[in-house]
Amino acid sequence: MAPIASTIPPHVVREHVLRLCELMRESEVAAVLLFDRANMLAFAGTSHGPWDRLTCGAVTRDGQVLVVCPEFERPAVAGAEAIATIHTWREHEDAYARLAEALRSAGVRGGVLGYDGRVWLESYERFRDACAFLTPRPAGALLREVRVCKSRAEQALLRAAQERGVRVFEALAPLMRPGARECDLHTAVAERMRAEGLSVDPMIQSGPNAAVPHNATGTRGLEAGDLVVVDSTVIVDGYYSDLTRTFAIGSAGAISPRARRAYRAVRDAQRAAIAAARPGVACETLDAIARRVIAEAGFGEHFTHRLGHGLGIECHEPPYLVGGNREPLRAGMYVTIEPGVYVPGEFGVRIEDDVLITENGCQVLSSALATDLSPELD
Amino acid sequence: MAPIASTIPPHVVREHVLRLCELMRESEVAAVLLFDRANMLAFAGTSHGPWDRLTCGAVTRDGQVLVVCPEFERPAVAGAEAIATIHTWREHEDAYARLAEALRSAGVRGGVLGYDGRVWLESYERFRDACAFLTPRPAGALLREVRVCKSRAEQALLRAAQERGVRVFEALAPLMRPGARECDLHTAVAERMRAEGLSVDPMIQSGPNAAVPHNATGTRGLEAGDLVVVDSTVIVDGYYSDLTRTFAIGSAGAISPRARRAYRAVRDAQRAAIAAARPGVACETLDAIARRVIAEAGFGEHFTHRLGHGLGIECHEPPYLVGGNREPLRAGMYVTIEPGVYVPGEFGVRIEDDVLITENGCQVLSSALATDLSPELD
Repeated sequence: MAPIASTIPPHVVREHVLRLCELMRESEVAAVLLFDRANMLAFAGTSHGPWDRLTCGAVTRDGQVLVVCPEFERPAVAGAEAIATIHTWREHEDAYARLAEALRSAGVRGGVLGYDGRVWLESYERFRDACAFLTPRPAGALLREVRVCKSRAEQALLRAAQERGVRVFEALAPLMRPGARECDLHTAVAERMRAEGLSVDPMIQSGPNAAVPHNATGTRGLEAGDLVVVDSTVIVDGYYSDLTRTFAIGSAGAISPRARRAYRAVRDAQRAAIAAARPGVACETLDAIARRVIAEAGFGEHFTHRLGHGLGIECHEPPYLVGGNREPLRAGMYVTIEPGVYVPGEFGVRIEDDVLITENGCQVLSSALATDLSPELD
Repeated sequence: MAPIASTIPPHVVREHVLRLCELMRESEVAAVLLFDRANMLAFAGTSHGPWDRLTCGAVTRDGQVLVVCPEFERPAVAGAEAIATIHTWREHEDAYARLAEALRSAGVRGGVLGYDGRVWLESYERFRDACAFLTPRPAGALLREVRVCKSRAEQALLRAAQERGVRVFEALAPLMRPGARECDLHTAVAERMRAEGLSVDPMIQSGPNAAVPHNATGTRGLEAGDLVVVDSTVIVDGYYSDLTRTFAIGSAGAISPRARRAYRAVRDAQRAAIAAARPGVACETLDAIARRVIAEAGFGEHFTHRLGHGLGIECHEPPYLVGGNREPLRAGMYVTIEPGVYVPGEFGVRIEDDVLITENGCQVLSSALATDLSPELD
């Protein structure tokens, strides 16, 4: 899985906690346990997550946040200290008994204990037994509901991430020349971004390497006639930007007519999906709209992945724009729209932008980055 | 959690699968599902693990290995292809139904379906419903049993990892001088090792920074009188080495008598634990032996973590040398022995070696690295 940040701004965590408490009151949940690193980050301000030593969080209905961790790790979770009360256990002690005590000391003495759906089953069994005075109930939907629509404060962070994300492509564009190797481009842009205080690890796939969506950056040298797919994420203040552009190497004449047709189909599919994105439209409908455009251009079998995914604290999070997902879009949802065409052994194309659903439609937060970075493809 | 490799040698995977099949026959389990990345690596040869798109493995009692993953990720799990039959699902399909089909097609049509204890609870609920023709039962203990005692083939890999792990300290030792900053030492050794084909990320903690066991490498410059704790892991062919040494900066006179006493207590505690390590001795007994030595030297309250942990494919895996763990050591177990003393605001000391339990005692596989790299501390 893609990495997540170690901390996010405390005011965003507090906002998450308040929204979660409202939902807990509505659904009569006394406390919710956090295990997944992304949920720890969203609700307790630290991404310390599951490992061989129990580290977890809890939010009580009255808004208290607890973190349980090993005693000697206390300084490491200090980032959470502004938000949470930290309860530690020593190596020879029963960590789950400590968790139960921490809940009791926060006034949680009965009722429903919600839990994160990504808890390890072996952890679930242990907290269930240690907290036998509470009734366990899945609470993944509550946690998800808080995170799926981005607040104004989160939107400001997402915009800041976009400003930095765009820089990666601005830095790469002038380097896209025949002879440059994928790995050398990677090094060059990573160093350039490091000088700007940003750690990046873009996927750079050229020619036939781009025909596998998640191929690693390799050592192939760019050649005239190549399409080059560059997919780059950045994290700013804990929030993701996730962008992809397809470059052409050499003159328009060097690119095969088929690759140019595929490029235009992907671009048109993305445009059509963006034009249709608004509250009330089902996630699967956007996917179907893009898929139809690509199928009509004759590349339907080569669009092998879903249209997009939500992003925020995680690079992939709900909602997913995929066939079968009838969930309607809502204002504040934030998704990638990234159709692609992959012709094995020949070429790949993908264009990815990050789109905020608004009251009346949507806004492409990555609009500062032109879609066609290689006019030869137009 | 510490990273794991993307692949291990196929002959080691096959050995794991054979041993697992024996245990499955004894306990009448028809198939075991793999979810945790380390178990995927150990039994299916690929570390693709849980994320938003179902990727999991299964071993049948007759030794078939299956991997279920998204269709477009097939090339990415190709490392597993020598070992496993890959069953893919397309984005709009039900991944868990595909898993059930894959099991049926491998002849698993009834009986007990074992599962990895680190499966996400939300995944557990879905495979349980999709595989209603099977009876779910926890199988973490079977997976653990296969991995906890290292085979001859694994021991060869562990020895190879030690050879490389020792190099990190050899490269660092001449750089340990007043004025050098922690981060600069990190860069220097990382570059040196990269030239030798090894990626390393040692923790380098000087002076008071070393008083927090898992503090990150910082920007502090070394000063005469400092103790510097360096903890470094390497992975070779998928298997870990995990070593720690404590260096002294400046002449013997520059080091406080208290820090020198702490150093000698830690060294003596480690020696005592190693001398006692043999089959039949309980894990908690080794911990207690080391703890007593440190307590007698007056530093008992400052030894804040367990004595050690198993290692192999994961940097931390069973068995754990910790109070309360009565499990007896067995030949083939492989553990760190790493007592430490941490005096807040002043200094830290830790010495860590990797020890293979043998038929009659134990062998320190990291013995090529001297314990006392700074004779001033002796």
